Amino acid sequence: MKAISIIGSTGSVGVTTLDVVSRFPDRFRVVAMAAGRNLELLADQIRRFRPQLVSVETPKLARDLAQRTPPGVTILHGSEGAIAVATHPEAKLVVSALVGALGLPPTLAAIKAGKDIAFANKEVLVVAGEVVTRAVREHGVRLLPVDSEHNAVFQCMEGRAPESVKRIILTASGGPFRQLPADRFSEITIKDALNHPTWRMGNKITIDSATMMNKGLEVIEAHWLFGLPAEKIDVVIHPQSVIHSMVEMIDGSVIAEMAITDMAIPAAFALAYPDRLPLDHLPRLSLIDCANLSFEQPDFVRFPCLRLAYEALRAGGTMAACLNAANEELVAGFLAGRIRFVDIPQHIETIMSRHHNPPARTLEDVIGTDGWARMAARELIGADAAAVQA
Amino acid sequence: MKAISIIGSTGSVGVTTLDVVSRFPDRFRVVAMAAGRNLELLADQIRRFRPQLVSVETPKLARDLAQRTPPGVTILHGSEGAIAVATHPEAKLVVSALVGALGLPPTLAAIKAGKDIAFANKEVLVVAGEVVTRAVREHGVRLLPVDSEHNAVFQCMEGRAPESVKRIILTASGGPFRQLPADRFSEITIKDALNHPTWRMGNKITIDSATMMNKGLEVIEAHWLFGLPAEKIDVVIHPQSVIHSMVEMIDGSVIAEMAITDMAIPAAFALAYPDRLPLDHLPRLSLIDCANLSFEQPDFVRFPCLRLAYEALRAGGTMAACLNAANEELVAGFLAGRIRFVDIPQHIETIMSRHHNPPARTLEDVIGTDGWARMAARELIGADAAAVQA
Repeated sequence: MKAISIIGSTGSVGVTTLDVVSRFPDRFRVVAMAAGRNLELLADQIRRFRPQLVSVETPKLARDLAQRTPPGVTILHGSEGAIAVATHPEAKLVVSALVGALGLPPTLAAIKAGKDIAFANKEVLVVAGEVVTRAVREHGVRLLPVDSEHNAVFQCMEGRAPESVKRIILTASGGPFRQLPADRFSEITIKDALNHPTWRMGNKITIDSATMMNKGLEVIEAHWLFGLPAEKIDVVIHPQSVIHSMVEMIDGSVIAEMAITDMAIPAAFALAYPDRLPLDHLPRLSLIDCANLSFEQPDFVRFPCLRLAYEALRAGGTMAACLNAANEELVAGFLAGRIRFVDIPQHIETIMSRHHNPPARTLEDVIGTDGWARMAARELIGADAAAVQA
Repeated sequence: MKAISIIGSTGSVGVTTLDVVSRFPDRFRVVAMAAGRNLELLADQIRRFRPQLVSVETPKLARDLAQRTPPGVTILHGSEGAIAVATHPEAKLVVSALVGALGLPPTLAAIKAGKDIAFANKEVLVVAGEVVTRAVREHGVRLLPVDSEHNAVFQCMEGRAPESVKRIILTASGGPFRQLPADRFSEITIKDALNHPTWRMGNKITIDSATMMNKGLEVIEAHWLFGLPAEKIDVVIHPQSVIHSMVEMIDGSVIAEMAITDMAIPAAFALAYPDRLPLDHLPRLSLIDCANLSFEQPDFVRFPCLRLAYEALRAGGTMAACLNAANEELVAGFLAGRIRFVDIPQHIETIMSRHHNPPARTLEDVIGTDGWARMAARELIGADAAAVQA
C-alpha cells in the first residue's frame, strides 16, 4: 500500500491521478491533498479518499472547506499548507500537479523530505531545474514524469545506458494553428486558442500548446530530467499524437512510446513505478484504426515561443525562469483579453532581452527573476491594454 | 576485444556482420567462419578477417578453398566443420546466420559450449524451440535476435518486467502481394515473388516474405524467444517498414522500435550487446522524410501460410518443425519452377494434416519430423511437376 500526497488535486492531472487511485484501492491511499479554489470538487475528493491533511489557497477557503468536511481532517492553507501536504510523514510519493511556478516550493520540500515525485508540473524544472535536480541527487529520490512526452521518453530510456542515447525527439501535435498561415496569427481569438485538436487540458497549458511554448518548456524540462544539452533534444510535429515521444540511440535505433491520449497512462506509470498497472478500463491503442502517422519539422517562425525556449535553455542561468514567468503572466493577460496572441512571444522576447540573467544557484535566485519578469510582463500588458482603451 | 565465430559468413547476415566487424576492429576479431559454397567471397573474407578456422559444405570445396587460402588457416567441412566453428574455444559469441534447418546442429553445439548466440536463423527456433531454449537455460547463455523484428521486440522488452507485457506486435511489410486480389495469386511468377518492396534479402527468405510464411515463422520464433503464447503475439501490416516491431504493456503503453531498413543495426546490436555501437556511417531515420506510417490487419485468407504457422504453434509438438521443413522444400520447388506459388501453402496444409505430431523433446524428434516432412513435400512437388509435364 503506497501512501501518496497530491499537490494540485483538483486540476486535470490531480483528477486523473485520483481516478487511477480509485481503481486500485489495494495499492494506494491518499494521505494528503492540496488544491486551489475549487472547494466543491475538493470536498467531494475528501469524502471519497479520506486524506488526513488538506490544504487550500487562503484562510477563507480553509474556513469554508471546514464547514463541508467531516471532522478529523486537518485543513491548512497557503504555501505552508501546501508544503505540509508535500512533506506528510507517511507519503512515499508526492504527485506534483500544481500548474505554474506555485508548485515549486512544495515540490522542493517534498524532495528534501525524501519523497519520490510524480512530476506533472513542468514549470518547476523550467524555473529551477538546477536547484531541483541537485536536491534530487542529494536526497536520492526519483523524478517520475507524468507529462505525456517525458513519460514517453522515460519509458524509452528505461534499461538503456545514457551513453547509448544520441538524442531525444519530443513529439508535438502542432496545436490548433499548425496549418495557419503566418499572416493570420494576429487574428487569433481566445476561443480559437483554447480549441486544442487532441488533448483536453487546463486553459494555461492549452494556450501554451497553441503558442508551442508548451513544447519549448518541455524541451527545457527534458534537459533537466534526462541530462541532455539543447542540441540533443529535438521536436517533431506529429499531428496524430499517437507517438508520445522518442529516443534515438547511437546505433540509429529509435525507441518510441505510443498510446491513446489519456493522462491516466502516464499518471498510473508514475504512481506504480517500477510496477505497471493493468489499465483495462481504457480503450487500447489500435494502430489500424488510427489515421496514418505523419511527421513535420516545427516552424520556428510562426511559433517563436519554441525558438525562445531553446534560446533560454542555451543561455542558462535564470533565463528559463524569466521565460516561464513572463509567459505565465502574458498567457493570463491573453486569456483576460488584454493582449493579442502574437503579443505573447513578442513580449517574452522583449523581457528576455532586458533580463541580466544572473545564475540560478538557489531558490532565491529564481524567485527574484520570477518576480522581476512578472512585473515586466504586467507592465507590457498594462501598456497594451491602455493603448487599446485609448 | 570480443572473439566471434560466424556460421553462414557468406549469406546476407554474415556479410552485414562482417561489415560491422570491419568498422570496429578494436572491438571484435573473427576466430572462425563457416560458409556454404561461395568460395570466392569466403576466400576474400578469410584474407580480410584472418580467422583461425574455416568450414565449407563438402570435402571438394574444402580442397578448392585450401588452394586459395594462405597457410595457417585450418579448413574443415560438413556438419562437423560447422560445429567446430561454432564451438571454437576462443569464441565468446557465435553469429548463427546459416539459412534453414542446417543451422540447428552447430547452433545447439555453440549453446552447449557456453557461447552467446547472435541469432539470425529463425528456423532453428521454429524447428527446435523447446530443445534450444532448454539448452539456453541450462547453459546460461544469451540469445540475441538479429532478425529485425525480434531485435526490435528485444529492444522494446529491455528493462521491462515480463509480467508487464500484454502482447508483442510484429510488423510485416505485407510483401509484394499485399494488395494483390485473391484471384490473382495463381498467376504469381518467381520474378514477382522475388521483388520485395522494402528489404533486400536472400531468395528463400524473400519468398517466405511473399507468402508471409516469414512472418509466421517469426511468430513461432517470438514464442520461444520471449516466452509468450500464440494469443499474445500479433501481426500488423505496416507497409513502410519503419516500425520494426512493438510491445504493448498492460497499462496500454506501446513501445516501438524504428530504424532504417538496414540489417547492420540489429547485427551490431547483437554483436556489441550490452553496449551499443555508433553506426555513424548509416543514414539516420528521418520520420519527416518518411511516407506516412500506416497499419492494416493481416489477411489470413490470401496468406494462408500465416494462419498455418499460428496453427502449428498452437498444435505444439513437432508441428512447427513439420511446417518449416515442408516450407523449405516447397519454396525450393517453387524457385526451381516445379510448383506454383499457391501450391506452397496448400501442400504445407496437406503435409501438416498428415503429420502425427510426436513431441519435440530431443533433436532426434525434430530431425525425424524434418526428414519426414521434406520427403512428403518432395513427393507432392514431384507429382505436380509430373502433372505439368504430362
